Amino acid sequence: MSPLEAPEPTVSRLGLYLRCLRACKREGIETISSSGIEQRTGISSGQVRKDLSYFGEFGKPGRGYAVDALLDRLAGIMHLDVPHPMIIVGAGNLGTALAGHAGFAERGFQVAAIFDNDPAKIGRQIAGHEIFDVARMGEINERLRTRFGVIATPAAPAQEVANYMVQAGIKAILNFAPVRVRVPEGVVARNVDLGQELEILSYFASRQPGAERTGSDAR
Amino acid sequence: MSPLEAPEPTVSRLGLYLRCLRACKREGIETISSSGIEQRTGISSGQVRKDLSYFGEFGKPGRGYAVDALLDRLAGIMHLDVPHPMIIVGAGNLGTALAGHAGFAERGFQVAAIFDNDPAKIGRQIAGHEIFDVARMGEINERLRTRFGVIATPAAPAQEVANYMVQAGIKAILNFAPVRVRVPEGVVARNVDLGQELEILSYFASRQPGAERTGSDAR
Repeated sequence: MSPLEAPEPTVSRLGLYLRCLRACKREGIETISSSGIEQRTGISSGQVRKDLSYFGEFGKPGRGYAVDALLDRLAGIMHLDVPHPMIIVGAGNLGTALAGHAGFAERGFQVAAIFDNDPAKIGRQIAGHEIFDVARMGEINERLRTRFGVIATPAAPAQEVANYMVQAGIKAILNFAPVRVRVPEGVVARNVDLGQELEILSYFASRQPGAERTGSDAR
Repeated sequence: MSPLEAPEPTVSRLGLYLRCLRACKREGIETISSSGIEQRTGISSGQVRKDLSYFGEFGKPGRGYAVDALLDRLAGIMHLDVPHPMIIVGAGNLGTALAGHAGFAERGFQVAAIFDNDPAKIGRQIAGHEIFDVARMGEINERLRTRFGVIATPAAPAQEVANYMVQAGIKAILNFAPVRVRVPEGVVARNVDLGQELEILSYFASRQPGAERTGSDAR
């Protein structure tokens, strides 16, 4: 099966496997079984084997996976074997938090520039990066040639920001604004809906043994 | 099938259906077909029917789903028919962004209190909420009786914050720190890994037609 056909839940889990393998490497662990991955990630060993089988044969029966080789291979599959400079649009609290987020830089996603349309913010710095006028995105990205963009604006301007990004050559957009942005073919956008994370949590919390339920769904 | 058995990807999509149905209601649409939901959410009509079938029979063949009834039912299933006051720990940029996030309050997740351990922040306000000393969480939550907690701290203190929350009676934790937190049985924790979102995006971007690929994975 071609890597193109891996379903999104599998792809989501690849990131967890990567994190697990990086931790193993730091701890000097050279091979790990699917059960070992289960213990560290909470994903069942059967699911681990199924997920990894989308991308070829990795493990050796009875010996487990070679940590280094699997790490390199997964990083290659996810195209994380090269650095991904990115731009952030929106220099408010969220943009500032994202610009300084340790989980981005350590995975190769480094901020190349930050943009805003607020004259009070333009020219100032966050996390060591100057804030540029969003109107200069095309010109500046012609030099930077970044392909990744993060939208950290309110909902209202998000689609317009996405359009600007596409014009400026951005090919992959991570959108934190609470609205779905649309992009043309050849560009991917991923909408991160923080409110939805709470909704999912609400569902699982209400299904815990002993959870207080008053609605008609308590069974 | 019991609602307990709906798999997580289905639960994740319920939030998208809710958003779609809320938009329909605002637009005065009274019934919508699974194809209509597909057009608005990008989720295939077959998947829509399959997802909703976990929770009972909703639609009428040839007539589609009654928007109001399905909205109420899904909100009930996700336990979103009651307000969920929540506390936030961490009054930095991320905590501040989350405290003012429009997508939370409009879904019934309202900030009840914000905590930090930085004396320079304690007593100040963000988004109209006073910042309290994290050491007072137990005492304050005894009054507030919130069950939802959001961790918006760096990685290092996140597990300790989760432990405090559990002691203070929090039953559902949304963790934004870039580290997995563990909770005892009866409490649910959801780890939001923002770096992982970029990794997933990287995977899909590298699979776009015309994407520049240099590694051995280009096929």
